[in-house]
Amino acid sequence: MNYKIRCIREKMKLLNIQGLIITNPLNIRYIIGIPVEGKILITDRENIFITDARYIEEVNGFLTINDEFVIYDAKDLSETDNQNFFQNCENVGFEENYVTFAEYENIVRKHRIKNMEETEGIIEKLRMIKDEKEISNIEKACKITDDCFTYLIDYIKIGMTERQIALEIEKFFLEHGADGEAFETIVASGINTSKPHARPSEKIIREGDPITIDFGAKYKGYSADMTRTIFAGYVKDELKELYDLILRNQEKISKEYTDGTSCKMLARSIENEFYLYNYTLIHALGHGVGLNIHELPIISHNSQLTLKENMVVTNEPGIYIPGKYGIRIEDTIKVGRNEPEILTKSSKDIIIVDE
Amino acid sequence: MNYKIRCIREKMKLLNIQGLIITNPLNIRYIIGIPVEGKILITDRENIFITDARYIEEVNGFLTINDEFVIYDAKDLSETDNQNFFQNCENVGFEENYVTFAEYENIVRKHRIKNMEETEGIIEKLRMIKDEKEISNIEKACKITDDCFTYLIDYIKIGMTERQIALEIEKFFLEHGADGEAFETIVASGINTSKPHARPSEKIIREGDPITIDFGAKYKGYSADMTRTIFAGYVKDELKELYDLILRNQEKISKEYTDGTSCKMLARSIENEFYLYNYTLIHALGHGVGLNIHELPIISHNSQLTLKENMVVTNEPGIYIPGKYGIRIEDTIKVGRNEPEILTKSSKDIIIVDE
Repeated sequence: MNYKIRCIREKMKLLNIQGLIITNPLNIRYIIGIPVEGKILITDRENIFITDARYIEEVNGFLTINDEFVIYDAKDLSETDNQNFFQNCENVGFEENYVTFAEYENIVRKHRIKNMEETEGIIEKLRMIKDEKEISNIEKACKITDDCFTYLIDYIKIGMTERQIALEIEKFFLEHGADGEAFETIVASGINTSKPHARPSEKIIREGDPITIDFGAKYKGYSADMTRTIFAGYVKDELKELYDLILRNQEKISKEYTDGTSCKMLARSIENEFYLYNYTLIHALGHGVGLNIHELPIISHNSQLTLKENMVVTNEPGIYIPGKYGIRIEDTIKVGRNEPEILTKSSKDIIIVDE
Repeated sequence: MNYKIRCIREKMKLLNIQGLIITNPLNIRYIIGIPVEGKILITDRENIFITDARYIEEVNGFLTINDEFVIYDAKDLSETDNQNFFQNCENVGFEENYVTFAEYENIVRKHRIKNMEETEGIIEKLRMIKDEKEISNIEKACKITDDCFTYLIDYIKIGMTERQIALEIEKFFLEHGADGEAFETIVASGINTSKPHARPSEKIIREGDPITIDFGAKYKGYSADMTRTIFAGYVKDELKELYDLILRNQEKISKEYTDGTSCKMLARSIENEFYLYNYTLIHALGHGVGLNIHELPIISHNSQLTLKENMVVTNEPGIYIPGKYGIRIEDTIKVGRNEPEILTKSSKDIIIVDE
């Protein structure tokens, strides 16, 4: 029995939809288990994966009878076949946040669907809770990221450019078994650290600069996400104070990443703590990490979700002083029943790099 | 006067739309000229770029009065501002092939749009013809790709894996000024060459293998696309014959990449030539190359488009014998008024790599 499909069918009942069309490649990878192109149709009678000649051998070799999938090559399906899949379905769900308007119209026409229903992230919500294999892939991505940070502490010297360091990270990932970067690396130094989403520039690292490095490897499709802020030459007193404030709170709130904690309360707690010092948390405190670098749940004061065991989420408070500097510290954390496990294990002590 | 906006407004008149919403990041990069996030609204009165604090400084510094854009920070716009932009527009166009169903509904609500109209790739069609700066970026991407191939001829040895070679290509690009790969490199050897879209595997290159390398650098957002098939140790007679057949046709058809040539006829011509030898061209003969690796025009027997001066397109005939091997040869070509210019200049002589 296919566990993921069983969960999806339960959710479908609650939404009163008898059919479902899944076309988002990350959702397909999640359900099928390997990266192949095609689309999944869940009908009142069966689970169907429609693919093409490039993938059909691989899928047939990977899926077993227990996966309960019927595999078709798209070119073997007649117009009537496509019209018949959903003939007994009153309502058919689709991924309204992925399917383009043109695809939507095409689906309705091709499958003669009576009524299309938005599903509000039915699969994305399932993906929040990771299984053993997913966690093991994320752990491996985090390990490569940690190893890279160890390497960087030796590698980074005053006088290098931000772009040079970002490039070295990408090369390290490729040479150490990662698929590549999970997202575009941020290396920001000096004044650039005041922008949370700075892109690596040709700016040279100078003595006194804070250096924010936000990076993560991708391994078998799964992401890691870690930020460390280190310092060039020495640490200015005001930066040291700010660093300590953020680190103290980051470590304290980490302990609350357990089953049952409200995402809203986590974010509020850090926001209030910063507010006492006249600072504002200008972005979310964290987000889910998995096949996508940003996925559910979002940990912010708008969130309605609660942490559950085996979610994998980030904890990334930061403070940014416009025109001056900023500091962010981030870990990827596995939510535990009683205790969280921090998957990115690099040191958060103040680290100083030299010439 | 903003030339691109003028062209877009002319097309809008033909489509009887008074407003246009552009959200596809590649189309925004094309119009604005730098990679920034936001959305463009073209109304009956003005051209608007709505962005946020991360980009506002950069955009204001880059655009001049001649670009005729009004820049807004999204957070400064009230609900009423958003409702008023299109108040005099009967029909508003949108990118139906990019906008998701959920975004479509959100746009209609947010801007109180009376009637949304599909625009069938209005910007994508403009993007087919490249300007001087775009061509110069593509030329640079092709040069890095050529340099990489020169390097590979020395680097590749019998006994290496496909993945090892693919990794080396990615590293070469990063170290030679490219943004990175324009697409996921294909390195296929031996039997794997029979699949046109093979992914690099752990298969080891053995004596007698053909090796198909399909790769391209990206430079300032613009792509190169080149395929070469080389040989390990020696060339089997049957492969030599096939190679000569493909090369002869690839070079002959290249000369037809000139203003006014029908894309359909180009593809048909190669298909017929292969058919005489009992082979089938199982994919398109070529495609446009630019900010996207695959863009308009597609050169296939289904195409209704005609080549125009300063389009940049590929010419990539290939023959694949299931379960045995395949050969493909591909160049990126700038369409000329009377003569094409081949932008990827690597040798197409038979190249043999050794131990």
